[in-house]
Amino acid sequence: FKIATLPGDGIGPEIIEQAVKVVNAIGEKFGHQFDYQHAVVGAAAIDATGDPFPEETYEACKNADAVLFGAIGDPKYDNDPKAKVRPEQGLLAMRKKLGLYANIRPVSTFKSLLHKSPLRTDLVDGADFVVIRELTGGIYFGQPRGRSEDQNTAFDTCVYTKEEVQRIVKLAFEYAGKRNKKLTAVDKANVLATSRLWRETVQEMAGDFADIELEYMFVDNAAMQMIQWPKRFDVIVTENMFGDILTDEASVITGSLGLLPSASVGIQTSVFEPIHGSYPQAAGKNIANPLGTVLSAALMFELGLDLQDEAKAIREAVDASLEEKVVTEDIAEGKAYSTSAVGDWLAE
Amino acid sequence: FKIATLPGDGIGPEIIEQAVKVVNAIGEKFGHQFDYQHAVVGAAAIDATGDPFPEETYEACKNADAVLFGAIGDPKYDNDPKAKVRPEQGLLAMRKKLGLYANIRPVSTFKSLLHKSPLRTDLVDGADFVVIRELTGGIYFGQPRGRSEDQNTAFDTCVYTKEEVQRIVKLAFEYAGKRNKKLTAVDKANVLATSRLWRETVQEMAGDFADIELEYMFVDNAAMQMIQWPKRFDVIVTENMFGDILTDEASVITGSLGLLPSASVGIQTSVFEPIHGSYPQAAGKNIANPLGTVLSAALMFELGLDLQDEAKAIREAVDASLEEKVVTEDIAEGKAYSTSAVGDWLAE
Ligand SMILES: CC(C)[C@H](C(=O)O)[C@@H](O)C(=O)O
Ligand SMILES: CC(C)[C@H](C(=O)O)[C@@H](O)C(=O)O
Repeated sequence: FKIATLPGDGIGPEIIEQAVKVVNAIGEKFGHQFDYQHAVVGAAAIDATGDPFPEETYEACKNADAVLFGAIGDPKYDNDPKAKVRPEQGLLAMRKKLGLYANIRPVSTFKSLLHKSPLRTDLVDGADFVVIRELTGGIYFGQPRGRSEDQNTAFDTCVYTKEEVQRIVKLAFEYAGKRNKKLTAVDKANVLATSRLWRETVQEMAGDFADIELEYMFVDNAAMQMIQWPKRFDVIVTENMFGDILTDEASVITGSLGLLPSASVGIQTSVFEPIHGSYPQAAGKNIANPLGTVLSAALMFELGLDLQDEAKAIREAVDASLEEKVVTEDIAEGKAYSTSAVGDWLAE
Repeated sequence: FKIATLPGDGIGPEIIEQAVKVVNAIGEKFGHQFDYQHAVVGAAAIDATGDPFPEETYEACKNADAVLFGAIGDPKYDNDPKAKVRPEQGLLAMRKKLGLYANIRPVSTFKSLLHKSPLRTDLVDGADFVVIRELTGGIYFGQPRGRSEDQNTAFDTCVYTKEEVQRIVKLAFEYAGKRNKKLTAVDKANVLATSRLWRETVQEMAGDFADIELEYMFVDNAAMQMIQWPKRFDVIVTENMFGDILTDEASVITGSLGLLPSASVGIQTSVFEPIHGSYPQAAGKNIANPLGTVLSAALMFELGLDLQDEAKAIREAVDASLEEKVVTEDIAEGKAYSTSAVGDWLAE
């Protein structure tokens, strides 16, 4: 298999290194061969080439069977509303160019981390849902966007076509079919024209997925219910901007932010990455938690390469590391292991 | 004082009735006279006039010193993306026509309700912050919005002018000045042109409010931190759509959803309303919790009529009702009182 590895910024390189160790161990155990192509993205790519998602990186991704991605973001680009090139543009370009239309974020619960949840344990113990966020449309990419000539008025455009909505809603219905058969379509159809297109399209498609229990929910209500009653959800599907907010809200609910993986499903290749950020304060210190990236590799086997036993083997290794308390300082109760020590242990 | 009362839908009439009792009691105690003008809005107004915010209601509001508002929304208008007139349009028309540019939502904590919070008690005990949401701009009202001719593409426009941003940011800085002197400006400046205008404008104004500690935060991060560490916030200011989501998220954090008031500050008149909805299942049953509306009346005295002792007297009455457990079934531990009994007790 050809794997493109994009470490990105901050702790990206360290955590990708651990995921590669684990993928190689899987290769040895199950008899697969992996060809890696490393490529730059984000601030690292701006520094190296001036472009946060250079052409060579695009080529490496396009030609790969799957992409393993770390994180992007560097404080030197923050709080400067006039910066011309920003690391985030690399992320957005990657999504657009590779057609990564569906971001899939499973929220799972790890018993040993429940006490880290900001929610009452009874509310989150057993929570298990997935947020599917549209990733290449909406207000992130709609035109026109910018400023009036006198600079006093700014505007952004949210646009969706029926085809864009159908593509992700189909994926969401199918995903729900493989899980607990419940789909929550989140929108703001009481205000937005784009949301009414979403709701209308979901309604039209519901007949083809009659075994899935379907409900509609306004985004403000979803933001409440996710805290009040997270166990009520199975699969949530929503547009890009709402998904940005709800996936992040969802990520802190079970106390396992550092462990949560994600998949960004593309037309050809898909990208797998932890949901946490580039954590610049920890960069180079060998203390970052690699489990989110390692579990992203598991998701890569499951969804990207369709190798289920391999995915399962990785998840079992992670469960074992939690059980044996071979974990980094962010979740350690007693002794803390380094990033690379956790990677070595998992590979072993 | 001239007060326009807009009960709206569902439990609206019952809860407004209790607030009026309390306002009258304040009138007697402090020697004020209140002239009420009742007017319809929402589904009730559609049923009566075909228009969810009829001209007479607009006139009543415009000519009032303050507006006391219940809630809108009726299930018969839900889940119908093609409905031509919806109750929510009345709310949006009210905001636009009265120029209600700033929605102020204080999130306070009531000790006796802390166990109702979905968050761990240690995280919310003492939480006390205010979300200030821009209410007449952004994607809620921007043009163009609608569908392409073939109906296959839908679009909405988010627009802000510098003046709109300045107006609410000034109010937010001043509000922070009367509290703990910390302002969090929430946006998505790494993606949206409108957010970059917001951030730029906040930066330009910060010099005039040098005693206020200012920070910027992306909306996805704010959605996380509000759960992880609600006590870190003092005043949050943000645009309309982000504010819709964050205010609702904020409202469930301390377990006191039924008690939280809001003010929508207008150019001339301001509107005061509980943040909970029209709760149609409870309508007419005399079980709804009137405290959110009664505390909205307190906010009316504080912000709308500038009568601080009157506001304080109402809040003390509410605190006493909680202490004496004269409360409705939603928060009662033992005996539950009816909506009107709680209203009578508070007035008394
Ligand atoms: C960095 C930013 C552009 C990005 C987004 O908003 O999509 C991030 O928040 C995410 O969710 O991956
Ligand atoms: C009913 C709806 C149009 C409204 C809004 O989105 O503003 C509501 O959610 C609110 O927050 O008052």
